[in-house]
Amino acid sequence: MLEQMGKAAKAASYQLALLSSREKNRVLEKIADYLEAQSETILAANAQDVSEARDNGLSDALLDRLQLTPARLSAIAADVRQVCHLTDPVGQVIDGGLLDSGLRLERRRVPLGVIGVIYEARPNVTVDVASLCLKTGNAAILRGGKETWRTNAATVRVIQQALVECGLPAAAVQAIESPDRALVNELLRMDNYIDMLIPRGGAGLHKLCREQSTIPVITGGIGVCHIFVDDSAEFAPAINIIVNAKTQRPSTCNTVETLLVHQGVAERFLPALSDAMAEKGVTLHADSQALSLLQDGPATAVAVKPEEYDDEFLSLDLNVKIVADLDTAIDHIRAHGTQHSDAILTRTLRNANRFVNEVDSSAVYVNASTRFTDGAQFGLGAEVAVSTQKLHARGPMGLEALTTYKWIGFGDDTIRA
Amino acid sequence: MLEQMGKAAKAASYQLALLSSREKNRVLEKIADYLEAQSETILAANAQDVSEARDNGLSDALLDRLQLTPARLSAIAADVRQVCHLTDPVGQVIDGGLLDSGLRLERRRVPLGVIGVIYEARPNVTVDVASLCLKTGNAAILRGGKETWRTNAATVRVIQQALVECGLPAAAVQAIESPDRALVNELLRMDNYIDMLIPRGGAGLHKLCREQSTIPVITGGIGVCHIFVDDSAEFAPAINIIVNAKTQRPSTCNTVETLLVHQGVAERFLPALSDAMAEKGVTLHADSQALSLLQDGPATAVAVKPEEYDDEFLSLDLNVKIVADLDTAIDHIRAHGTQHSDAILTRTLRNANRFVNEVDSSAVYVNASTRFTDGAQFGLGAEVAVSTQKLHARGPMGLEALTTYKWIGFGDDTIRA
Repeated sequence: MLEQMGKAAKAASYQLALLSSREKNRVLEKIADYLEAQSETILAANAQDVSEARDNGLSDALLDRLQLTPARLSAIAADVRQVCHLTDPVGQVIDGGLLDSGLRLERRRVPLGVIGVIYEARPNVTVDVASLCLKTGNAAILRGGKETWRTNAATVRVIQQALVECGLPAAAVQAIESPDRALVNELLRMDNYIDMLIPRGGAGLHKLCREQSTIPVITGGIGVCHIFVDDSAEFAPAINIIVNAKTQRPSTCNTVETLLVHQGVAERFLPALSDAMAEKGVTLHADSQALSLLQDGPATAVAVKPEEYDDEFLSLDLNVKIVADLDTAIDHIRAHGTQHSDAILTRTLRNANRFVNEVDSSAVYVNASTRFTDGAQFGLGAEVAVSTQKLHARGPMGLEALTTYKWIGFGDDTIRA
Repeated sequence: MLEQMGKAAKAASYQLALLSSREKNRVLEKIADYLEAQSETILAANAQDVSEARDNGLSDALLDRLQLTPARLSAIAADVRQVCHLTDPVGQVIDGGLLDSGLRLERRRVPLGVIGVIYEARPNVTVDVASLCLKTGNAAILRGGKETWRTNAATVRVIQQALVECGLPAAAVQAIESPDRALVNELLRMDNYIDMLIPRGGAGLHKLCREQSTIPVITGGIGVCHIFVDDSAEFAPAINIIVNAKTQRPSTCNTVETLLVHQGVAERFLPALSDAMAEKGVTLHADSQALSLLQDGPATAVAVKPEEYDDEFLSLDLNVKIVADLDTAIDHIRAHGTQHSDAILTRTLRNANRFVNEVDSSAVYVNASTRFTDGAQFGLGAEVAVSTQKLHARGPMGLEALTTYKWIGFGDDTIRA
């Protein structure tokens, strides 16, 4: 079955690659309209998914994440209309020129072809990914969380109806509808048909893809993010940034997980930190030196477990570690970070520059919150994933990351000397 | 042992990333000087490799490929000096701007980190790859063909001496010196230390890397390249291009392997082709329709075997197939090509555009030889490999392909709203 899906997707991708931006926007507009006009079938499927998930004992927070409402569906449709307004990178000439040989060479941006996406149980992702892939002329094979398979199937049928009515193949957007996990393993070996695989999810999924996939994979989305408070940091704005980076939306990958505090200011800084964290209900996981300064509260402080430096809390918890200097801070980040987002709070230019140059992460910040690592915040208009690997795309992946390029040589009966 | 090498390479990469172009060029110049000044040790090691290879019955052609001479070593040193003159992409600002939030964002080109390269038994590749990696601030772990392991080890020792004398860690360039093949499998799992893996070699090596590597891999270098002779092609220049694409250097990956001839001109074109191919000693592997037109010579013509459409000859052999039209030609290329280099010979603008848009290869040509797909020919100055995958880099990979980028956010105590 997957083999057939792959073949159909590849064939569809050849057709999609030739569409103008106007033709692609026409499909996107129709998809947005149909999501609203046919909300009933999608909502009915979603109700079944939610009911089954409730029977299976999913938490209220997770149930809320997978539930659709008419208002949420309208918001999703609005996002699709937003994608219409984004600049289409396909067809862009990256560079080119006339070579000594007489060959006129051009490097032109083209779609990747077929993109496979494995994602969590969030119904909006189905539409987000499909619309970004279509906007860039790519076919998509989607595999959403098994808790939302009925919702995804219903959503993809609406998308396919819009495609077909625009004279395009339904196979341009396909979903793997069975909740069978073995299909994921099969999907990972379809390098004949799929050009890029994006796993969105936990560390386990990323490891599986890195180890088993024969398709080029973009890994990311896991953020053990750090903020280093230098000895020249100004306290009030530093606290403000830490509060934002930890508490604005704790479940996201760009949330700070570990605070590294310069020993020269720890004694004065940590009480102020404790006040602010207490107010926000953040539990501090402190190394022994920091704990002695934090144990009297007001924020709850516990001894950090070594493995907590290497994992995301995704909750109102924050590691606090005192470091000797900038070098020690950088060493800690190199050893424990996931190359996602890291920040320095400092008033010293040389330290700011050193941090920017020496911390090897997708995004590095000076006197700013790590929460900015996001496609919309970065002005990319949309985001299909956040890459923490170095090949192809790094950090928030916008439309450009869904394209590749092709070298085109125009000769005048030109041969190589 | 490999674990130690990986750790040392990663540590070295942090230091290399901070070097200015001038500092990197200083090392490269010293390497070039030492390759000449210490040619004796390298040539002695090479003599041992060659002697052992001869005892093992390697062909004269292969022996020639792995043999070094003082003149060849000087040419290799000259190539290193050439790399000094190339523009260093590291530090380049790709784009940036001031966001509504007040964050000043910049996307800056940085080295990849540690690059692993597995390559054939060609001693010049050791120096080529090392110099391109150093120029872009990357550490390199090299695994050359086992027939040249002594040569590679001696060469790397000379490179390391130059590194150390410039105050840089020897681990910036390391070679796996043992001919043990099991080490390759171990190398493929070192995703903790290696950021990108480039296998240069045959289809078997690429398959192994795609299936076993947990490190992002760049595959390529295998070219089943096509030329389509359209019915509007002019015969004399078409023959000239085919001769160039097939015979200028038949063992290269950008050599044409299959000629697709429009049925409308086959009867008149194939006799002219046969004359030219006979002159160059090319054997034609023809489909049944073409064979009936080619069997009387003057070029040797045999019936093509189906599997020959999917493989590189790398010799003076050429498939010839008659196709109904441009669509059939494109279908054949999609089914049998390796997305390397394909050309159309035509005088019809619409067909030229269709071919360029619809053939999904790294390089597509109109009225030019496929032999142009090459870093030097494309003006990239150098080439570390030719990628036929779509992620990260496509076609000839120059210095830019050895870099990634980093997002840098400069705030003024800026938080996300």
